[in-house]
Amino acid sequence: MSAGPKFPQVEYEESTGALRECYDDVQSVLRVPWVMFAARSLAVFGGFVPAAWRAAAPVFATEQVERAADELRALAVLPGEDPPDPRRRLAGLGFGEDRIAEVRAALAALNHGNAQYLLLITAWCEGVQGRASGGGPSAGAPGAPRPSGLPDGMAALHMVDPRDADERVAGLLTRVTDMHLHHGPSSDFRVLAQWPDFLEVALDDVLGPVVRTPAYEAIALALLDRARAHVRRFPAPAGLSPEQALAVCTESEVAAVTGLLFLFQRFILDVTIDMVRCTQALDGRGAAASSPFSVREA
Amino acid sequence: MSAGPKFPQVEYEESTGALRECYDDVQSVLRVPWVMFAARSLAVFGGFVPAAWRAAAPVFATEQVERAADELRALAVLPGEDPPDPRRRLAGLGFGEDRIAEVRAALAALNHGNAQYLLLITAWCEGVQGRASGGGPSAGAPGAPRPSGLPDGMAALHMVDPRDADERVAGLLTRVTDMHLHHGPSSDFRVLAQWPDFLEVALDDVLGPVVRTPAYEAIALALLDRARAHVRRFPAPAGLSPEQALAVCTESEVAAVTGLLFLFQRFILDVTIDMVRCTQALDGRGAAASSPFSVREA
Repeated sequence: MSAGPKFPQVEYEESTGALRECYDDVQSVLRVPWVMFAARSLAVFGGFVPAAWRAAAPVFATEQVERAADELRALAVLPGEDPPDPRRRLAGLGFGEDRIAEVRAALAALNHGNAQYLLLITAWCEGVQGRASGGGPSAGAPGAPRPSGLPDGMAALHMVDPRDADERVAGLLTRVTDMHLHHGPSSDFRVLAQWPDFLEVALDDVLGPVVRTPAYEAIALALLDRARAHVRRFPAPAGLSPEQALAVCTESEVAAVTGLLFLFQRFILDVTIDMVRCTQALDGRGAAASSPFSVREA
Repeated sequence: MSAGPKFPQVEYEESTGALRECYDDVQSVLRVPWVMFAARSLAVFGGFVPAAWRAAAPVFATEQVERAADELRALAVLPGEDPPDPRRRLAGLGFGEDRIAEVRAALAALNHGNAQYLLLITAWCEGVQGRASGGGPSAGAPGAPRPSGLPDGMAALHMVDPRDADERVAGLLTRVTDMHLHHGPSSDFRVLAQWPDFLEVALDDVLGPVVRTPAYEAIALALLDRARAHVRRFPAPAGLSPEQALAVCTESEVAAVTGLLFLFQRFILDVTIDMVRCTQALDGRGAAASSPFSVREA
């Protein structure tokens, strides 16, 4: 990763008009405190994001997505032993339980969102590549509605801007990026960069030993397959076909969107696994495999 | 894959001026009869392709790339048994040795190019993601020059346009695309679509059983790792950094290029494995693992 130019995107604070409304609706429907990097980047290209969100919103407002995301979150736990508890090294750095609690709360919000964003980007990716993003032969009936709006007790998230980061934090974000062969730091790691001691220990002990190993790749593939299977069962397409995308984008914008959706799909797969594993390091497999904010039928 | 709009690209026949010169130089230096789909698509975005090719051309004109491509080609052979010989089913369809010879010649040209294009897109991908595409601590001295121009006896290639294809061929190209989770058919499969009987048997018996299996994914990852290792050893950067890309593209064009390079890198990994496997099905592991057009020092 370069410390150079920022990847083009429309950040939440910069969004206006229909895009701001769309960003707010995404956060309210998914019940998360941030808009995925993918959507912020895609927002640069024509009217894709608002139109694609209009296609996705109906199914994302139902329990079908809540249950699918629950399944993906559980599947994202790597097999094998738990990672070492970062508290041991962190205690030596004076990083105590009060700050661990801040990290835990951020991870809970991120884990709640990542699995849903994986479903969203998979629907958009399948759609723009000309495959079914719902409404096909295996589609089910529309699911029951689920609540909207940020869950009680979910932490607000703050993302460090890599351009404003000090040398140590910039170095950690470069390390994250290059370790995954990404093009830049994800929202999730920009959040964790608020706690550089935690991020460094996580990279050394929790993520570094597993990222891009065969076991990690196998879970990424399994997550992709399951995400696709869930999307195919959506009652109606949650993505735009190339023809539909051309109604809101130029031809080259559709090409750009196609490339970026593919890139960010892999990106979100990685980050989903990583954040689940950070939670596993702090609180064990059970906590990692579920979201405290998931709504279950009474 | 959709039978809908064609993915934006500048085909060889449509290219003019500096882009046509660049296309001709790519073909002459790599000694192949086609320009990769990735470059034709990237050509839509500002001045990226000519500038990135100027960075890459010096090392691609040397034996260092010839040897690296040889190694990647050999690595692309999947472990396990040879695929079934397609001749048995093809003979029943009246598809004889004369047409097998046409397919073999096309595959030889494609195999010669794919491994080199994998190196090229990996250099471009690493560069635009801010990592070294040569010239780093592990870089070597410039290699000896290699010959340029199409090798004697290399077949010309003709690509079927999916929009002009009949129902059967269009269906086969959709099958190829969806089997790989691609966004459209590669140059290689558009070439094989000239022989729909061969393509159908190859999809049924040679590729269908292996594509996206754990063994296939493992080889794709190994190819990527080796391609990156070769690129890091290039004597000078063969790709553009984000800052360099911004000299020839707008910010959004750089984002588009970043996404498309990532998408096409995986695309070329898949196609490299596939074409090698088709040659293996016809002529065995030894023929698949090498290129008859590779130039060896005397």
